[in-house]
Amino acid sequence: MRAVDLIRKKRDSGEHTREEIAYLVAGYTKGEIPDYQMAAWLMAVWIRGLSHAESLALTEMMLYSGEIVDHSNLPMIKVDKHSTGGVGDNTSLILGPIVAAGGLAVPMISGRGLGHTGGTLDKLEAIPGFNTALTLAEFRHVLRECGLSLIGQTTEIAPADMKIYALRDATSTVENIGLICASIMSKKLAEGIDVLVLDVKTGSGAFMQKEEDAIRLAEVMVDTAHRMGKKCVALLTDMGQPLGRMAGHSNEVIEAIDVLKGKGPDDLRELSVELSAWMFHLGDRTKSVEEGRRLAEEMIASGKALDRFRQCIRLQGGDARVIDDAFLLPTAKSQVNVTSPKSGYITATRCQDFGIALAMLEGGRGKKEDRIDHGVGMEFHKRIGDGVQAGEKLVTIQYNSEAKLAEAKNLVASSFEFGDQPPLAPPLIRQVIGG
Amino acid sequence: MRAVDLIRKKRDSGEHTREEIAYLVAGYTKGEIPDYQMAAWLMAVWIRGLSHAESLALTEMMLYSGEIVDHSNLPMIKVDKHSTGGVGDNTSLILGPIVAAGGLAVPMISGRGLGHTGGTLDKLEAIPGFNTALTLAEFRHVLRECGLSLIGQTTEIAPADMKIYALRDATSTVENIGLICASIMSKKLAEGIDVLVLDVKTGSGAFMQKEEDAIRLAEVMVDTAHRMGKKCVALLTDMGQPLGRMAGHSNEVIEAIDVLKGKGPDDLRELSVELSAWMFHLGDRTKSVEEGRRLAEEMIASGKALDRFRQCIRLQGGDARVIDDAFLLPTAKSQVNVTSPKSGYITATRCQDFGIALAMLEGGRGKKEDRIDHGVGMEFHKRIGDGVQAGEKLVTIQYNSEAKLAEAKNLVASSFEFGDQPPLAPPLIRQVIGG
Repeated sequence: MRAVDLIRKKRDSGEHTREEIAYLVAGYTKGEIPDYQMAAWLMAVWIRGLSHAESLALTEMMLYSGEIVDHSNLPMIKVDKHSTGGVGDNTSLILGPIVAAGGLAVPMISGRGLGHTGGTLDKLEAIPGFNTALTLAEFRHVLRECGLSLIGQTTEIAPADMKIYALRDATSTVENIGLICASIMSKKLAEGIDVLVLDVKTGSGAFMQKEEDAIRLAEVMVDTAHRMGKKCVALLTDMGQPLGRMAGHSNEVIEAIDVLKGKGPDDLRELSVELSAWMFHLGDRTKSVEEGRRLAEEMIASGKALDRFRQCIRLQGGDARVIDDAFLLPTAKSQVNVTSPKSGYITATRCQDFGIALAMLEGGRGKKEDRIDHGVGMEFHKRIGDGVQAGEKLVTIQYNSEAKLAEAKNLVASSFEFGDQPPLAPPLIRQVIGG
Repeated sequence: MRAVDLIRKKRDSGEHTREEIAYLVAGYTKGEIPDYQMAAWLMAVWIRGLSHAESLALTEMMLYSGEIVDHSNLPMIKVDKHSTGGVGDNTSLILGPIVAAGGLAVPMISGRGLGHTGGTLDKLEAIPGFNTALTLAEFRHVLRECGLSLIGQTTEIAPADMKIYALRDATSTVENIGLICASIMSKKLAEGIDVLVLDVKTGSGAFMQKEEDAIRLAEVMVDTAHRMGKKCVALLTDMGQPLGRMAGHSNEVIEAIDVLKGKGPDDLRELSVELSAWMFHLGDRTKSVEEGRRLAEEMIASGKALDRFRQCIRLQGGDARVIDDAFLLPTAKSQVNVTSPKSGYITATRCQDFGIALAMLEGGRGKKEDRIDHGVGMEFHKRIGDGVQAGEKLVTIQYNSEAKLAEAKNLVASSFEFGDQPPLAPPLIRQVIGG
């Protein structure tokens, strides 16, 4: 077998065998296939696509390129959630403690933000001292102690994915359903989980803006998980506007704690409970999703979920006092309001632009190497369907650097669309795939 | 400008500006853009294509990445020919001496064989001592002395092409009209020529087997040459069967010398004269192509072309006695005949397979690193349209190694197609493009 022939095959729209995928992944991981051949193959894949079978094989080979975390000493069922990302999406910080408090184990290996989307690791690092770079032994230890641990991808986890992802990023071959599926699933399955609940976003703030693409991605990922012997379901959820009222790292930690305290915005609470409910149900903790919802609500109401989050923060070296004192989190020095240019109803947002504006103010990353200012953020005062008067506050921007403030403010101001009639409020959860 | 954005643009079927092409070529040549980004871009180009304007810009940038040979001390008009390659195509060895003897200068930078096609440099190196690796100063000197010099691409000539071609070879991105055009034309225009005659092959032994592809390639190349201020015409010629009666390196030198002696097969002689005639005509040596034909015939009949070849061989260090004694060329130890399995008429050949069989016997290169056995060859006894009896000789294979002899023999035997009626003999020269 030669890489040059496999590149040609994919270039000419051929379908690879499992052996061919194995050859490419193993050869590339070992350094026997050079970057430039993998790059050409990735571009051919981006344009020609991968079949379900190819995507499954790629997932498996990337998964088996590294270690699968062994939690056999833990009696609880292991469950996790993955979101395809958006603006203000901090449900991991909420459902992780809920599900752990409810008696399941949540070994969560998360990513960082890039472009307009935020990342769970970055948000956690807004908490002073919180260490997301645990070793796998420390990861297992924290999980055993409190049923929840949140870390970043280590070198032992799917090293093939780590190497291929860096190359995709540099060669404009990121947004492809088969490649995205393999990248996500190889990392998630390496967590040693039994159950995976997927939150696949669609709409103007999602990676997959078109609903049909989001559905295809959800189907491929659910199918892959099933074929790998895991329980899995995908919720197709709306990202046509920010989730919750807050975006930015400290902001989203504060809002997650608010929800765990029984407060916080309805949409964020509803989605966190719904995802927790599916995790409870597929994790055999409850007989139904409905029962799962009640258990999730109970974990919030009893304060058990909040306690579990406190315990997790402490175990990972963080300052758990942030739960009672938000001023221990980094904050921005200044703030400015974006006001409405007209009266009417908000009919839509270009949600992605909020994330881009945040990154301009260093509250996100344009490039992987960019530093993040955890204090930078936004508060959204209006949602789709709300009436608004000309001059009324739409968004408050919290910032430290004025360098790109005007540009960011303009982007935010132009991200709202208005109409004379209130639109139908978009449903938050559009459908359940594979349930 | 960032390479990753330009890759994305081409991936999404965008058209590059001249500045973007310049950025990519210069950045890659200087090593600022890594192989893997260029590889991803090349695959996107292979699949999405290049416009005429992009192909022209790529040609120019690759040309200007190196030196353009300065022949300003030579009063004669400088002309060259380029063939897209095939089996038994040795017209360069014939028309070079003809045109030089006719009073024009022929500064010919040629390539090596790869896959089923032979290369002029390899054929010349069958002549003991012939040095194709002259410096540009030596190249200019030989050209001044005898009006003809034949060398390989030096590091000064289109270094961007050299680097990009190696990458294309390793990433299955060779066969694309825009890339082929830029690669050929950047090298040819670096020769410092005024006139270029293109021999674009089509049929089963050609690189571009489909006539429509060959015509498109011819059009793009002629257009590029015209826009670069050069006179240029393309002859679309048949490669549905080997050109001449011989294939293999020593064999093709012998056959070229035969033609220069006024002998040799009709088709090879006709095409060599026709290409020479166009070079004479576009090079303002004759008033018409017809007059060019007469001049070419005269250069053969008078022995002047043969003398010129003898002189060129000597000036490039070769043993010119090969012209009178073919046994000074490497020969194969053994030979075997492939006979006809049936009686009837030959209606077609899978001409490419003759070249592949030759490479199996080390008379060509499967990979760039392969060594070549110059003595290995084939003699073709029958052409399309000929009647043949079962058991009659079709091809004589001259070989040294028996390792793949059976496989090569089978391939040759199965390359002929037979019918009950003689087919219409295919025209050798199908059309003239840009004339």
